[in-house]
Amino acid sequence: MARVSTARLDDTFRLLEERLATISDVYSAASVLAWDRQTYMPEGGVVGRAEQLATLARLAHEMLVSPKTGELLEHAGGREPGSDEAALLRLARREYERASRLPARLVAETSRVTALAEPAWIQARDESDWSLFAPHMERVLTLKQEEASYLDGEHPYDAMLDRYDPGSSTHRLRSMFRELKAGIVPLVRDISTKLGEDRTAPLRGCFDEAAQEAFGRDVISSFGYDWGKGRQDRAVHPFCVNFGAPGDVRITTRFDPRLLPVGLFGTCHEAGHALYEQGVDPSYSRTPLAGGVSMGVHESQSRLWENLVARSRPFWSHFYPRLRDAFPGVSGDIETFYRAVNAVRPSEIRTEADELTYDLHVLLRFELEVDLFENGLSVADLPEAWNAKMEEYLGIVPENDALGVLQDTHWAIGYFGYFPSYSVGNVLSVQLFEAAVEGRPEILPEMERGQFGTLLGWLRENVYCHGKKYEPDDLIERATGRPPETGPYLRYLESKFGELYGFVDEV
Amino acid sequence: MARVSTARLDDTFRLLEERLATISDVYSAASVLAWDRQTYMPEGGVVGRAEQLATLARLAHEMLVSPKTGELLEHAGGREPGSDEAALLRLARREYERASRLPARLVAETSRVTALAEPAWIQARDESDWSLFAPHMERVLTLKQEEASYLDGEHPYDAMLDRYDPGSSTHRLRSMFRELKAGIVPLVRDISTKLGEDRTAPLRGCFDEAAQEAFGRDVISSFGYDWGKGRQDRAVHPFCVNFGAPGDVRITTRFDPRLLPVGLFGTCHEAGHALYEQGVDPSYSRTPLAGGVSMGVHESQSRLWENLVARSRPFWSHFYPRLRDAFPGVSGDIETFYRAVNAVRPSEIRTEADELTYDLHVLLRFELEVDLFENGLSVADLPEAWNAKMEEYLGIVPENDALGVLQDTHWAIGYFGYFPSYSVGNVLSVQLFEAAVEGRPEILPEMERGQFGTLLGWLRENVYCHGKKYEPDDLIERATGRPPETGPYLRYLESKFGELYGFVDEV
Repeated sequence: MARVSTARLDDTFRLLEERLATISDVYSAASVLAWDRQTYMPEGGVVGRAEQLATLARLAHEMLVSPKTGELLEHAGGREPGSDEAALLRLARREYERASRLPARLVAETSRVTALAEPAWIQARDESDWSLFAPHMERVLTLKQEEASYLDGEHPYDAMLDRYDPGSSTHRLRSMFRELKAGIVPLVRDISTKLGEDRTAPLRGCFDEAAQEAFGRDVISSFGYDWGKGRQDRAVHPFCVNFGAPGDVRITTRFDPRLLPVGLFGTCHEAGHALYEQGVDPSYSRTPLAGGVSMGVHESQSRLWENLVARSRPFWSHFYPRLRDAFPGVSGDIETFYRAVNAVRPSEIRTEADELTYDLHVLLRFELEVDLFENGLSVADLPEAWNAKMEEYLGIVPENDALGVLQDTHWAIGYFGYFPSYSVGNVLSVQLFEAAVEGRPEILPEMERGQFGTLLGWLRENVYCHGKKYEPDDLIERATGRPPETGPYLRYLESKFGELYGFVDEV
Repeated sequence: MARVSTARLDDTFRLLEERLATISDVYSAASVLAWDRQTYMPEGGVVGRAEQLATLARLAHEMLVSPKTGELLEHAGGREPGSDEAALLRLARREYERASRLPARLVAETSRVTALAEPAWIQARDESDWSLFAPHMERVLTLKQEEASYLDGEHPYDAMLDRYDPGSSTHRLRSMFRELKAGIVPLVRDISTKLGEDRTAPLRGCFDEAAQEAFGRDVISSFGYDWGKGRQDRAVHPFCVNFGAPGDVRITTRFDPRLLPVGLFGTCHEAGHALYEQGVDPSYSRTPLAGGVSMGVHESQSRLWENLVARSRPFWSHFYPRLRDAFPGVSGDIETFYRAVNAVRPSEIRTEADELTYDLHVLLRFELEVDLFENGLSVADLPEAWNAKMEEYLGIVPENDALGVLQDTHWAIGYFGYFPSYSVGNVLSVQLFEAAVEGRPEILPEMERGQFGTLLGWLRENVYCHGKKYEPDDLIERATGRPPETGPYLRYLESKFGELYGFVDEV
């Protein structure tokens, strides 16, 4: 009897896995279409592509929320606690619960509206004309607010956060940002009095795009990015994308011929995401366990490779001579260059911000999004509110909306609630990097030789391979021995920038 | 009463249109995934992509054959004869009937097996090793034979033909090829006695790939290819693809740095397909009326632009000076160059064959495919059978299988029954071009000035805009006043090559 019943459970579980694999395939197909839209699709494809994406979103949603899925989930039974199967069921049930509350009409409409909003955003940014984007923003926001109304949460914005960081909340983020603000704002203020001459001169000039691409490829090849399982293309707004499996994880990059960091650190950032995805256990492919566990943890990896690695002294002690070979126009000693890539300089664009002021850009977006979801702020008033907060936190007012409220793609594609992940990622990046170095002290000397195998190995073993198996907090505690905390990050900032701007000597 | 019932009919029709649009979107998504697989996908994506394509094929099939679709088709009623609506219903019912006979399992399996067979074919061709491809070929053929067993047809091969050329049949094609053989074989024989020195020398050398691409872009821009609604990429086996609408119609090209015609005429060929697709009435998008009516008519357009235009004297009188500017290595007078691009020279590769011997390559494939479907020929014996027919029809035996049985992608992707379309296309290309020139005699003098607007306009009006509205034979008769016939094509070949090889003077 017991054997029969186990066999039946196994059959049900297998049917469930098949169904989830089908749904995963449809989402992956949609990701290919989205990648294509942002890299190669001609203008004439915009309307048709919006329909295709809406259809795929609707079909995947319908399959996910169908009574058949519910039935399989109900009868797939309990699995051994701690097993992959148990985690798969937990995740599938959560997805099912969440999706079941959303009407298919809303899902398809959101997909269609965002697919049209994105090209409109590109045009609006090109022409720095908010009015071209505002009606799209209104439509997207209305749909996301409707979505929030169907979902749980103490705060209407919680439903947005939960999608990117399961377990996150407005309350929790307010507390995190309070700590970050308390640590970072005084530091920025102190440094502002000591800015002196612009340290970023070595990063400005004329940098051949092909040479930039080649150098970036060398760097991320040394990180361990596997070109047989990925590729790099150009996009207006860089991103990393995968298709439900670690065998095809692509990055995109934007190069600025006059400003080296845009392409270089952008490449390292997206490669960090990609290393994570390429490192997920391949047996999780086409299941709910595939992919990074949360956007907070994901950004911890993009920021770790971008900042803890590629903005570090050990990294440049190996790569600076190579950079000078690649760009004969670059001159000066390594210390000057190191100070350049770590120059603090309040600026308009988040993706180009230095490590220290970066979180203030995120804080600004977090507060604006909370206001939008509390209906305390209207889309019409957004540019003004943006500029006011820029002045408050960074002491500058963007010259125009392209350099201000229009700079990011997130709202166009409906990614409300995503921005805080960047700061969560910053916080976790240091906690994870310090745990890695503590466990494997050879990581730093290896970095000086341009070798990153031990670091990548530690991250694969402790973070990447697990995919979505553990909850984010649980994963961090398993990897570092402690729950997520801002302490290590703030101490790191204080130490690094204290040294760079002469505090350490003075104290 | 009548009004209510009309309204109900209209509702049903609208629901049917929505359903068909959804199905079209899924097929379009699959086409994007297939385009990506053949242009940019990294090797690590092969297995995942096969699953995604299989899932999309299965979902589209399930939606098409579901009782819901049958019900809507039944109750969508009769529409005004000759209307777009009536044509849509006729096409949708035919697709439904055909698809309903095929098990979803077979459809998904065919998609998965071909997605794996295609990269295997590329490898086998690269290494000229039939044994690497043979097991895939077995699997694909078995699935297509099973498919044929579910479908109607006097001959098992008819089911394959019907997919690409509705109304075609083994019987009809045997008769067409009999006429072509009777006209072409003696002509090739006569010319073979007069081949003299190799005329193709001006086409051989070292041709910068970027310059080839730029020149090809100029040529097809002058044809009227709209770059806002398409793009050009590289692929091992060039193709044209669309996504259910004329706004995004892409071509791919393979360039040979030592042989000019590969890239140039390949570009013109695919652009011919693309001009057809870009010219379909946009209101047909996402309906069964979208796209070219049959592969025979489609190939008539690729071959028309490739041969009747780009291998003609008027074309080169405009473009030859430009070609010499683009490739300083090219020398000699225009007549020598014209004779080079029209040199008859039995050769191994179909896509590089001259106009006269081209159909013999197709005839060979047609006969082999018929044999395969009659089970008179096994996959194991195919390379030998290929070589025997090459010797019989073209007097040469390929040096290796890469230049022989492995040269085309069609079998790998399951396109049995496609090859005859190339010869149907050749036949129709002349019939249509002569009708165009008869109707608008200014076409030829315009071609001498590098202008193709009148020709494109005539083709758009008489062929392209109609999409799939009329049956292929009907479309040809509407456009040319006569049913499809081999006469004009054979007379054209005799006249062109008679003149080129001195028959006309001699007679």
